[in-house]
Amino acid sequence: MVPTPNYPKPLHDYHPTKTKPRSLNPKTRKDTSTTLDQSITMILHKQISAGKGTIKSDLALTGGTVVNVNTKELLRADIAVKDGIIVGLGDVSDKIGDNTEIIDVTGKFVSPGLIDGHVHYESSMVTLTNFAGAAIRHGTTGMIIDPHEIANVLGKPGIELVLSEIEDLPSSVFVMIPSCVPSSSLETAGAVLDAPTVAQLLYQDGVIGLGEVMDFPGVLAADPEKLDMIEEALFLGKRADGHCPGMTGSDLAGYLCSGITSDHESLMYDEAIEKARMGMAVMLREGSAAKSLREFVPRLVQDGIGLNSFFFVSDDRHPEDLIAGYMDTHVRTAIELGIDPIEAISMCTINTARHYRIDHLIGSISIGRKADLVVLDDLRRFVINRVFVGGAANSTSTPMYPAEVFDTVRFKRIHPESLYLKSDTEVEANIIVAIPDVIFTDWRIETLHPTNGVLYPDPKRDILSIAVIERHGRGGGCEGCGDGDCDDNTGNEDRVGAEGIGRGFVSGFGIEGGAFAQSIAHDSHNVIVVGTNFDDMALCANEIRAMRGGIAVAYDGEIMGGIALPFAGLLSAGSVESVDAKLRGLHAMMQELGCVLPSPFMTLSFLALPVVPRLKITDMGLVDVERQEIVDVCR
Amino acid sequence: MVPTPNYPKPLHDYHPTKTKPRSLNPKTRKDTSTTLDQSITMILHKQISAGKGTIKSDLALTGGTVVNVNTKELLRADIAVKDGIIVGLGDVSDKIGDNTEIIDVTGKFVSPGLIDGHVHYESSMVTLTNFAGAAIRHGTTGMIIDPHEIANVLGKPGIELVLSEIEDLPSSVFVMIPSCVPSSSLETAGAVLDAPTVAQLLYQDGVIGLGEVMDFPGVLAADPEKLDMIEEALFLGKRADGHCPGMTGSDLAGYLCSGITSDHESLMYDEAIEKARMGMAVMLREGSAAKSLREFVPRLVQDGIGLNSFFFVSDDRHPEDLIAGYMDTHVRTAIELGIDPIEAISMCTINTARHYRIDHLIGSISIGRKADLVVLDDLRRFVINRVFVGGAANSTSTPMYPAEVFDTVRFKRIHPESLYLKSDTEVEANIIVAIPDVIFTDWRIETLHPTNGVLYPDPKRDILSIAVIERHGRGGGCEGCGDGDCDDNTGNEDRVGAEGIGRGFVSGFGIEGGAFAQSIAHDSHNVIVVGTNFDDMALCANEIRAMRGGIAVAYDGEIMGGIALPFAGLLSAGSVESVDAKLRGLHAMMQELGCVLPSPFMTLSFLALPVVPRLKITDMGLVDVERQEIVDVCR
Repeated sequence: MVPTPNYPKPLHDYHPTKTKPRSLNPKTRKDTSTTLDQSITMILHKQISAGKGTIKSDLALTGGTVVNVNTKELLRADIAVKDGIIVGLGDVSDKIGDNTEIIDVTGKFVSPGLIDGHVHYESSMVTLTNFAGAAIRHGTTGMIIDPHEIANVLGKPGIELVLSEIEDLPSSVFVMIPSCVPSSSLETAGAVLDAPTVAQLLYQDGVIGLGEVMDFPGVLAADPEKLDMIEEALFLGKRADGHCPGMTGSDLAGYLCSGITSDHESLMYDEAIEKARMGMAVMLREGSAAKSLREFVPRLVQDGIGLNSFFFVSDDRHPEDLIAGYMDTHVRTAIELGIDPIEAISMCTINTARHYRIDHLIGSISIGRKADLVVLDDLRRFVINRVFVGGAANSTSTPMYPAEVFDTVRFKRIHPESLYLKSDTEVEANIIVAIPDVIFTDWRIETLHPTNGVLYPDPKRDILSIAVIERHGRGGGCEGCGDGDCDDNTGNEDRVGAEGIGRGFVSGFGIEGGAFAQSIAHDSHNVIVVGTNFDDMALCANEIRAMRGGIAVAYDGEIMGGIALPFAGLLSAGSVESVDAKLRGLHAMMQELGCVLPSPFMTLSFLALPVVPRLKITDMGLVDVERQEIVDVCR
Repeated sequence: MVPTPNYPKPLHDYHPTKTKPRSLNPKTRKDTSTTLDQSITMILHKQISAGKGTIKSDLALTGGTVVNVNTKELLRADIAVKDGIIVGLGDVSDKIGDNTEIIDVTGKFVSPGLIDGHVHYESSMVTLTNFAGAAIRHGTTGMIIDPHEIANVLGKPGIELVLSEIEDLPSSVFVMIPSCVPSSSLETAGAVLDAPTVAQLLYQDGVIGLGEVMDFPGVLAADPEKLDMIEEALFLGKRADGHCPGMTGSDLAGYLCSGITSDHESLMYDEAIEKARMGMAVMLREGSAAKSLREFVPRLVQDGIGLNSFFFVSDDRHPEDLIAGYMDTHVRTAIELGIDPIEAISMCTINTARHYRIDHLIGSISIGRKADLVVLDDLRRFVINRVFVGGAANSTSTPMYPAEVFDTVRFKRIHPESLYLKSDTEVEANIIVAIPDVIFTDWRIETLHPTNGVLYPDPKRDILSIAVIERHGRGGGCEGCGDGDCDDNTGNEDRVGAEGIGRGFVSGFGIEGGAFAQSIAHDSHNVIVVGTNFDDMALCANEIRAMRGGIAVAYDGEIMGGIALPFAGLLSAGSVESVDAKLRGLHAMMQELGCVLPSPFMTLSFLALPVVPRLKITDMGLVDVERQEIVDVCR
């Protein structure tokens, strides 16, 4: 299943069914005497002819009831499709020819394809193409992605690769440019997206705005770098997404004054409604991590709030959740909770498209829009019968990725000694406390006793060793390092430790033996490893090094299991089902090791995020998040 | 009142209260390492500080009930304004300082400023600045203008002048670029806006799309010139407005396939609702000419149609109507006809702003948006108490216009003989029949008898002479012609007639003596003159020549009255009240002359429009509109 490594095709290749009117580079167009490409005019000519019925359609769905989100009606109407575009709605008999495939959907409903208004698809651990393929099964044909993780590893070329990948997808994927890469200066990221780089990316075709500006303190402090990014997006008529959990009152007003017009981080209903009233598009989030529909929707219904400013997002979707459902779940839940079905569907289609200013392309069953259609057996229960994407069946070609994206996990081979924390005396140690299913941590202080000058983990007291190894080829690794053993490091672990490895202790996992590690570690995605002993920890780290990214579990000197995530060290090249199966196996192993956390890999991935309280660890060491400074393990 | 002629300031001058995020030229910005202007960052810094309350507001409206179109609620909330931007909503006490002006609006409602979604402001016969000033009194603070008439006379520089003028207006004016200039090749216009020129204008700041594509046959025939314009607009994320009266079914589908997404020309309710269902934004028009609210609104209410895709427009506003009311009339009428007040206000604010993708700037009482506010004594009757534009009182500075715009009516002095139609024998003549208050005409054939080889008008049979004189300095005029008598023409009327004057006969006005003329004559705005005798006709034409544009009425060798419209030959430099008073005087004169039409100048202005049936006249002669060809007066 690993795609043939190859360089992607040029970014601005024309793709009639998806990005028709946005597909040429403005740079080459402005102030020239010739205007549009002849090919676009020819395609439009064909499309107009198909609308008029002088060229016949490829596909007609007949006998169904259309969910018309433009007028909020259920309407008996046939639908005609030519080249992936809706060209007829109502009586389409004059558009049906000998070669038109007619599909009878009598007794069924036809909804516009659902849109996820905000998702970091990387949490699915599969490629965008495989993610989009899995999404289609759940009626989700549109996605506004913020490839924040890809950006942290691969930088601008990674975003450009994503922009290239979406050109060939049957789904309608649009990109928000990550605004906070890296999230902090207290870790080593794979890339930096500064304001000029973000500005260049904002001009690209398929890009519809600036990704959530998580650095809300920066915005409130009027950080020129962040304001530049926001203004660049608005200048282009695109959106700037917000991220302001718990923010209300004057701070919220200050944040909105920057030009940001959306948020998906509301914790409480009162906060969400205040944001909507102040003029934000409020994204109702129901993802694998955060869930808010059951909290917010009944209140919205009860208070009779107008819902035009609200739409549905997932933010993230883990493999098992993506298999179980996607935006169809949002619609189904919203209807269950009392929202009218047409309105619920609008909140997952036209509201999203209008907000992101792509309603001329997707978000409704309208003439000239992409034929992303969901045939339903039942409207209120949103039972999906069949999904059309651009009018075509779910056909996904395997994309060609450049070889570089499979070679991003680069660090020197780890020796157990590289992970030692040394002390000649008893110490009071700062210890990270992992908490089940939240991304912040607690902070505990314990006395540790050295053995032969080394501070060993103490599983009996639930004190495990933790380390973060820089893996972007700086400090912790070496450029061009071969596959074989790399012995540069032997006997020189102090140097490696000083430059490329952050070391500390963690509590909360509860494993009694072995170790586990992964190359998913927000936001810089260095390799993070936790264990009851240094040998197993080194084994795990080296396994990830060999796999060029992934997750590994070891016990007693042996690798018990793992999953390769070679794409940027974040994504599998396989299907979501294969990833899910392997993850289930790894979770079972963790339970066998005595792990008490329900989602240890998820929890582990956030222990390195130095912008969410309280005590975290990066390749530079322990981070006191409130003070934004590195602290010593030993007080 | 004539402004000092002067050249306008540069187009992209920064204006914080109106076009904040769209005010720099993309051309100079792209792919540079520096991004935004420091001044924008500084202004934003101040704005964010005002939102946070660390800088105090200029203005606070306290105690009122806000019409919140975001959530469709009526909410008790105070409003704080800094530098024309809303920076507080709700409790704004921390934003009030010693220098904050506090206005108590207890017991009153506060609505977002109303927006006219589509207007050719030139039909008001006053400058944009004076138009906007008059509009404010009626709570109308936003206008999407399509300066089609200015474009026909002044071309690209005229549009650029408009773009310059809006920068200094307190109101929020946005421009759609006229797409059909000239409307026909069967007349001599002042300018041509071809696709490359339109493309250049579409890139400009303050421009939000392509104006109504009236050439719907061209679109349906996939005319590359028109498709180029549409695709250029969509490519920039801007809108392309439609114009498709009476169009339904497959023609409508074909038209929509071009990428056009709006229309304001529906004649019947069923047509309007079909357009909305197919995915068009349907503009409900109530202007000085066409009116549709009383026809459409009760049906929309009765059928329970979702109204997000509908918004209000005027299309045109004559002086007397602009004095009497503006978009407030639309809202009031809609409420009377059964639409909920919050929804009716939404249809004149947020719906319009969302469609045109300027909802981050105007259209709601939201943080970070322009403080265009209407204080109401009564919500249901929409009784206006006071209007704030960008938070400021209605302060309009007199703009500086370049001298050229006051020198656009250029033709050689007309001698009565220039207007003769000659024949040595009795003829069967094609005669235009003007019809009250519609823009199409009828076509009648009458026998005419020459006197001394000249076909004179015959008022007793209601057969008047009509002529259209090219006035853009080509053929009918001469470049650089002075103010004094121009005798080039003497004894050479045939040449002038052949090149620059179209001559014919018209029926329907009913005047028994005298003549009248004007330089408003759609779409090319040549000088059009009608009369019972050639002497009075020549007198009128020369009066307009002397005034550099306007309307004139003559009787028995004397000018009875007139109004100077020196700005492009279309607009007065005076107030709408002064224009209205003069127009009333001219209408009274016309009645005295025996005119039977209620709006003779309006009717006359459309007799030259060669794209609306049936028989019209241009400077090139009589036009058979269906056949799109010049026909002889004598059959």
